[in-house]
Amino acid sequence: MAEPSEDPVALAAALARGERRALARAITLVESERPEDGPLAEALLAELLPRTGQSLRLGVSGPPGAGKSTLIDALARHAIARGERVAVLAIDPSSPVGGGSILGDKTRMSRLAAEPASFVRPSPSRGVPGGVARRTHESVLLCEAAGYSVVIVETLGTGQGEHAVASSVDCLLLVLIAGAGDELQGMKRGVLELADLVVVNKADGANRAAAEQAASELAAALGLAQRAPSAPERVVRTVSARDESGIEPLWSAIQAHVSGERASGALARRRAEGEERALEAEVERALRERLAAPELVAERRRLGALVLERKLTPREAARKLVERLG
Amino acid sequence: MAEPSEDPVALAAALARGERRALARAITLVESERPEDGPLAEALLAELLPRTGQSLRLGVSGPPGAGKSTLIDALARHAIARGERVAVLAIDPSSPVGGGSILGDKTRMSRLAAEPASFVRPSPSRGVPGGVARRTHESVLLCEAAGYSVVIVETLGTGQGEHAVASSVDCLLLVLIAGAGDELQGMKRGVLELADLVVVNKADGANRAAAEQAASELAAALGLAQRAPSAPERVVRTVSARDESGIEPLWSAIQAHVSGERASGALARRRAEGEERALEAEVERALRERLAAPELVAERRRLGALVLERKLTPREAARKLVERLG
Repeated sequence: MAEPSEDPVALAAALARGERRALARAITLVESERPEDGPLAEALLAELLPRTGQSLRLGVSGPPGAGKSTLIDALARHAIARGERVAVLAIDPSSPVGGGSILGDKTRMSRLAAEPASFVRPSPSRGVPGGVARRTHESVLLCEAAGYSVVIVETLGTGQGEHAVASSVDCLLLVLIAGAGDELQGMKRGVLELADLVVVNKADGANRAAAEQAASELAAALGLAQRAPSAPERVVRTVSARDESGIEPLWSAIQAHVSGERASGALARRRAEGEERALEAEVERALRERLAAPELVAERRRLGALVLERKLTPREAARKLVERLG
Repeated sequence: MAEPSEDPVALAAALARGERRALARAITLVESERPEDGPLAEALLAELLPRTGQSLRLGVSGPPGAGKSTLIDALARHAIARGERVAVLAIDPSSPVGGGSILGDKTRMSRLAAEPASFVRPSPSRGVPGGVARRTHESVLLCEAAGYSVVIVETLGTGQGEHAVASSVDCLLLVLIAGAGDELQGMKRGVLELADLVVVNKADGANRAAAEQAASELAAALGLAQRAPSAPERVVRTVSARDESGIEPLWSAIQAHVSGERASGALARRRAEGEERALEAEVERALRERLAAPELVAERRRLGALVLERKLTPREAARKLVERLG
């Protein structure tokens, strides 16, 4: 919970100096649903906005059990070894929708978290359908302002939030495992459509052949479901996050994807779409907040009762309510 | 298109006298998206509201090709023969989503339409996902005010509008044909869940045994997917709209369902839910209309450009826009 006395200017300065605790407090502030935190969050972001926009934004999506967090741990440490600073906005494994195992939770991204050039932030709301999009955009901005050159957003592959996440990252990586046909049944098909890169994880030990097989099947399926003719080919790879094999080629593929998109102008268009989508979501949110004001809730109750008594149509009641907004 | 000079009081009077043309014009008025028609539609409905609420409201849903319109034609003529006056809010078969065959369209509900105690109104928007709910509620009210004792709302079984329709009718009838397993794959499963009564149509000729088989399978499936313990059993019947067999028992089952729901108080609760849902939809609509005002569209464009230039966050832009509502 953000302290009521949080000073946005001081917090922004501490965050810009790269203080991890300041970044953590700032994310808590922008995620807060308390009305009194809204103006503070706005002031904080306004202060930091000029420092944002420079990172590689990577989305990592996939069903529970695909090994997303182990892969993020390996991939992020690889990037750090090459000079990057990496922030991860992760699903909180303790939340009921996180789907992490108890054993897995204990060691979840623990090696990454021990790196000085890393920042790992689990958010319960990131596991909630719709909760991803809402404030992730702002958390990404805060990580950028704190000097992270790579920001990874982990999401569940349920299809609920991916559309929003896909437009707020530069590259969406979908993580599957062998038997992905079944996984894809459970996931919305649209997630596969949205993915820029697909990896079949756990290509290790006895599982290796099955993973290779799954990867060729997926590659064929993706070839059939090609997006716009100009869209870059969506590569399918196998990796083993456990053995840390395939991590280097994957990181190169991610960088190549983003460079290609930047050169073609697609990256700028995608980010503009993301901003437009974020604005849309914020307008809806602001309207809902406005309608939740006590006097409007009371007015709505009064008008709703008149509708039930057949003294007003819903249309007329709605007009009267919206007139009261002013 | 409603005439600009439409006088709501005169129109209401003509409609209350049972003039079909007045009812048709009134529905056009409430369906109109022209901002200047809004106040006229409101005035018309306010005038007629005391005359509404007395009909049996029946929803008829099902995939294209299930024979919805032939069944409605037979069922409505049966009800008229028993003294009812029946209005049908139908899907416009000429609209691309209507799914009617060219041959079928020519004869669509033609026998019903020839009955003096009938009113058949096809609406293109009723075939559009989301278009059903929006103004159907008001069209039902207008039909009631015009003295129709049964109002039938036809919808596609795509699951998009059924939730709204289910709460704005007293009984939702789902029309399927043999091979319904495949049909149900294409439809949202939720439609089956929402149905109060299910019929397997085209139980005639060589198709009869397959229809009976499909009906018993559906009955078993529905038994497993029973709703609240207190909910009435959802009957599965076979009918042949073509041969007009099974129509009398179906009409009795519909009347029994509605009587039971009225006696238990469930009908009143359902209608209250429908009003609440309609109010919700109208509030959203009114807000969108408000935001579509020219000065707000311009302001939004200006703020959106500032977001793209990284001079404002989406949150701040949204707050500024919503403040301008007043």
